[in-house]
Amino acid sequence: MADLPKTPRTTHRRLPKRGSHDRDLIHAILDEGLVCHVGFAVEGQPYVLPTTYARMGELLVLHGSQSNRMFRVLATGAPSCVTVSLLDGLVLARSAFHHSMNYRSVVVLGSARAVEGREAKRAALEAIVEHVAPGRLRQVRPPTDPEVDGTIVVEFPVLEASAKVRSGPPMDDPEDLALDCWAGVIPLHLAPGEPVPDAHVPAGKAAT
Amino acid sequence: MADLPKTPRTTHRRLPKRGSHDRDLIHAILDEGLVCHVGFAVEGQPYVLPTTYARMGELLVLHGSQSNRMFRVLATGAPSCVTVSLLDGLVLARSAFHHSMNYRSVVVLGSARAVEGREAKRAALEAIVEHVAPGRLRQVRPPTDPEVDGTIVVEFPVLEASAKVRSGPPMDDPEDLALDCWAGVIPLHLAPGEPVPDAHVPAGKAAT
Repeated sequence: MADLPKTPRTTHRRLPKRGSHDRDLIHAILDEGLVCHVGFAVEGQPYVLPTTYARMGELLVLHGSQSNRMFRVLATGAPSCVTVSLLDGLVLARSAFHHSMNYRSVVVLGSARAVEGREAKRAALEAIVEHVAPGRLRQVRPPTDPEVDGTIVVEFPVLEASAKVRSGPPMDDPEDLALDCWAGVIPLHLAPGEPVPDAHVPAGKAAT
Repeated sequence: MADLPKTPRTTHRRLPKRGSHDRDLIHAILDEGLVCHVGFAVEGQPYVLPTTYARMGELLVLHGSQSNRMFRVLATGAPSCVTVSLLDGLVLARSAFHHSMNYRSVVVLGSARAVEGREAKRAALEAIVEHVAPGRLRQVRPPTDPEVDGTIVVEFPVLEASAKVRSGPPMDDPEDLALDCWAGVIPLHLAPGEPVPDAHVPAGKAAT
């Protein structure tokens, strides 16, 4: 698909080789993340809160309780920012200065819109469950009307967005290469542990 | 240590039982995280960018290039927010609605200050390397004066801050408990992979 437009606000000033507006890359990062960090401001004070989300085509959908301030602010269409970052590794150089991290991140600027209508809200809520736990939706009780009505759903266009990626080994200065010091990358990934059933799961029933 | 003060801006409105101002808990979360998400605003547009950091007592220290806009903005003392979140697990309930995540997060509100003076800046830069890779500092070449001078270091008081924690099993509605559906927690943790030496490490030298 075509790249997303490069705007003055999404043009990478620093290290532009790490920046990208490639739509497929941006979508892939958004699809891999489980948590985004949402930035919004109240009375001039920026706030950053983590929450889950899903991508539906060219939109991110987020949800929260009707009593959640962040979602009430987002639903007004206030300028906001949604950032997803994936930490891929520690980059250990021979100098303190060149230590770094390998990562993939996406920053989406803009404004959210409240999703209205039960069926549109329900579709977004279901997309979030499927994003976090693919295949789960067909096993569980779907949202009731009061559950849908009690939830704010906002959608955030993935339009003014950019990705940033660092990968590969450390970039040491040539004069440091002879130092007697291991250097390289410690890869990192989010790993699942052994599933922990709750007290009501019959003995022997496997996690699905 | 005494709790941090609870201000109107750090009082949890939603689910107050998940909120805390416990200083030791806040410090432990900050010490475990590797990446924070920094919120700041430029011309009314909030931005959220990931970066690394370290805690030095009651301060968070962050660093970036002199040409990095975020650090230039932070160094002016503009209102900002530093959030660290640790994802501990997926909470799979029997209803779509009660799906959740286990996490620990800290939100720090306030303003950064530029750290001035080479030795203070160097100490902060060294703290960041040690935070990310404990023990590494004594193995690597320390920062030179030009490297220190070319870096902006900001400190952010951990004063107006709060933690939020969810842990434990799903909280299903009683009428859903008989559904034939596995429910529980899939623990998640950031796991290291096999170290990847760069091209200049002598064969057989172990990662340290």
